[in-house]
Amino acid sequence: MTGDLSDLVIPQRNLLGPGPSNVNPRVYRAMMQPVIGYLDPVFIQVIDDTQRPLRTVFRTENDLTMAISGTGTCGMEAGVYNITEPGDNVIVCLNGFFGTRIADMAKRCGANVIAVEAEWGRIIEPDQIREALKSANGPVKAVMIVHGETSTGILQPLEEISKIAHEQGALIVADAVTSLGGCELLIDEWGIDVCYSGTQKCLSAPPGMSPFTMSAAAMEVVQKRETPPLSFYVDLQMLGRYWGGGSTTRMYHHTPPMSMLYALREGLRIVLEEGLEARIARHKRNAAALQAGLEAIGLELHAQEGYRLPPLTTVKVPEGIEEMKLRRGILENHNIEVGGGIGQMQGRVLRIGLMGYGSTEPNVFALLFAIEQELLAQSYKLEKGAGVSAAVRSYDNAA
Amino acid sequence: MTGDLSDLVIPQRNLLGPGPSNVNPRVYRAMMQPVIGYLDPVFIQVIDDTQRPLRTVFRTENDLTMAISGTGTCGMEAGVYNITEPGDNVIVCLNGFFGTRIADMAKRCGANVIAVEAEWGRIIEPDQIREALKSANGPVKAVMIVHGETSTGILQPLEEISKIAHEQGALIVADAVTSLGGCELLIDEWGIDVCYSGTQKCLSAPPGMSPFTMSAAAMEVVQKRETPPLSFYVDLQMLGRYWGGGSTTRMYHHTPPMSMLYALREGLRIVLEEGLEARIARHKRNAAALQAGLEAIGLELHAQEGYRLPPLTTVKVPEGIEEMKLRRGILENHNIEVGGGIGQMQGRVLRIGLMGYGSTEPNVFALLFAIEQELLAQSYKLEKGAGVSAAVRSYDNAA
Repeated sequence: MTGDLSDLVIPQRNLLGPGPSNVNPRVYRAMMQPVIGYLDPVFIQVIDDTQRPLRTVFRTENDLTMAISGTGTCGMEAGVYNITEPGDNVIVCLNGFFGTRIADMAKRCGANVIAVEAEWGRIIEPDQIREALKSANGPVKAVMIVHGETSTGILQPLEEISKIAHEQGALIVADAVTSLGGCELLIDEWGIDVCYSGTQKCLSAPPGMSPFTMSAAAMEVVQKRETPPLSFYVDLQMLGRYWGGGSTTRMYHHTPPMSMLYALREGLRIVLEEGLEARIARHKRNAAALQAGLEAIGLELHAQEGYRLPPLTTVKVPEGIEEMKLRRGILENHNIEVGGGIGQMQGRVLRIGLMGYGSTEPNVFALLFAIEQELLAQSYKLEKGAGVSAAVRSYDNAA
Repeated sequence: MTGDLSDLVIPQRNLLGPGPSNVNPRVYRAMMQPVIGYLDPVFIQVIDDTQRPLRTVFRTENDLTMAISGTGTCGMEAGVYNITEPGDNVIVCLNGFFGTRIADMAKRCGANVIAVEAEWGRIIEPDQIREALKSANGPVKAVMIVHGETSTGILQPLEEISKIAHEQGALIVADAVTSLGGCELLIDEWGIDVCYSGTQKCLSAPPGMSPFTMSAAAMEVVQKRETPPLSFYVDLQMLGRYWGGGSTTRMYHHTPPMSMLYALREGLRIVLEEGLEARIARHKRNAAALQAGLEAIGLELHAQEGYRLPPLTTVKVPEGIEEMKLRRGILENHNIEVGGGIGQMQGRVLRIGLMGYGSTEPNVFALLFAIEQELLAQSYKLEKGAGVSAAVRSYDNAA
């Protein structure tokens, strides 16, 4: 019985797809710090040090602001499962892959799921929520909605929908996996009750934890549950006893992934050094340049104009172009990973991520050049250099 | 809005408690490899490269052998939630903290939990299982039991209980969080159907993933479920489509924590280099020396003789000794973390871990010396050096 494994050597790719995005090298360095006991005062300090910048990035004062010990999907489970009890009416907005996933989870919790739908690539309109609340059979416990939809590239306005939901006594649960740290997201000002995210998108840390925040009102709903949440792992009453309540009486629930928390702490530190506003502006500026370039190449953007998600751009694969071959060419000839479509978008769009550490001018130019080259390789008709030139003009206009 | 966080500096402690244990430095180095896309052929190779040694360490041919993207508690949730459907009869063995946790989870799944109890610190006897199966009201779906109980230091024999369960058509679900890689554990030979573990104990990687294996018979039970498992995050039918089925059609379920998988791969590689048998013998040898030393100091071991868990020793805190002060002295004066009791053992025992990279002769001697010194500081009567001398004799006898 001997190991047949060699030294692990992973190529350094330029990850410009739907995530994970490239990790800031400083984050890797933080992960080299030694693992330590979960009740060690030094580790408790790391927890506190992570909660503070998380509150800043979420723009919230919520006491329950923490990181769930799993990926974004685990954070989604924390959001959905703690709020939902069997028999609850829950509105779920279905206009992309991750909304569908929320509905699946809510059903597992025994909820009566009221679907509010829009075409993939379009936003949910506030009137749809107003209508759904009005026609529901009894009170609605929560409206669950995706802020940054990674499958379609839509950035969903939340403020008005949140107000409508609250008027009818419903909570708002928002998925910010791809938007946190890259888009404006004002938890307290907009009145978002529950929000979860991921570390591997705009925060530029590896996947493995899910930043999470919950309002006092939502926590009260959790505390009044008649039955415990169906998940033990993300039971927030239990997790809150470890993450919450000052540094006095922390109660063991599970062993947190220390190295991932170190990574998140460093990722947040980098966000605060840049400044949240500056970072959001950078994501917007680079996405605008990319999108201008893609249109100049002759491609059509998929997401509804005015609601495009800066960290993630979806662009239609033109007629006559083989999508798999296009992506493979971009990867093999330019070392850039972009994503394909997911769910009903499979084969129809490319998903291009400019997230966190990866949202840079060089990446915009490299992407546009690579796409141009690989389209030309498939005999697509285009004006050489038009994409890159349009990006330059976009930057000029923004300056 | 500027960051108020300094560079992260974590002290290097000697983690000799219930886990996390010290991480092998090679594992940290592997974690510096760049994050990469979850469908990148290079990453798929990492998955395959992790499954092979996992099968070796679990001593199984199970196709579904993988790592769950969460800590040991998440692996427990995967084990319990996939097997259990509402109304199922499930036997749960309660002789420690983690058995109680399994029962909590099974109840959340709507199971009828049949408790089989033993005093904390004693094993469950096969006859108890035979009796419980006989007197159950209808068929029993599964017997759930902890192999290495971190709260009591018991190593539970599984082979006979597994045979008894199978005779009655029940599956066996075993918790091997603290035993995998440090104790004999023969999944196929003993007929264990479902087993989960953690990375932060005898595998000497950071916490964050849960090694997991499931027999074909158990997977068939999962596939025949009338309702989907209550958890989406650990739904094995979905996870199996990503981890299973060769390297052809992997289906996205969630973004796995790449860095943690790199860590696990390296941890397993180190296990195989040492050899599983040699590693298990090392854990036994060092635990025996520690236990001999503790008894020579005049302390009483808590776990039932003949069934002591080599990676984790529980020792009673003697009359007149302040447990908190004792642990604090060991930490502050000797930089060694040992654990306190948990659940009903709180304040009554120390929990001393000699796991993986931490199971060494120097650690045994350092522990015995530190405990001796801190007991003397509390005016405990003992013969100086007796503990260390007994450890030397134990090593001599083993040689």
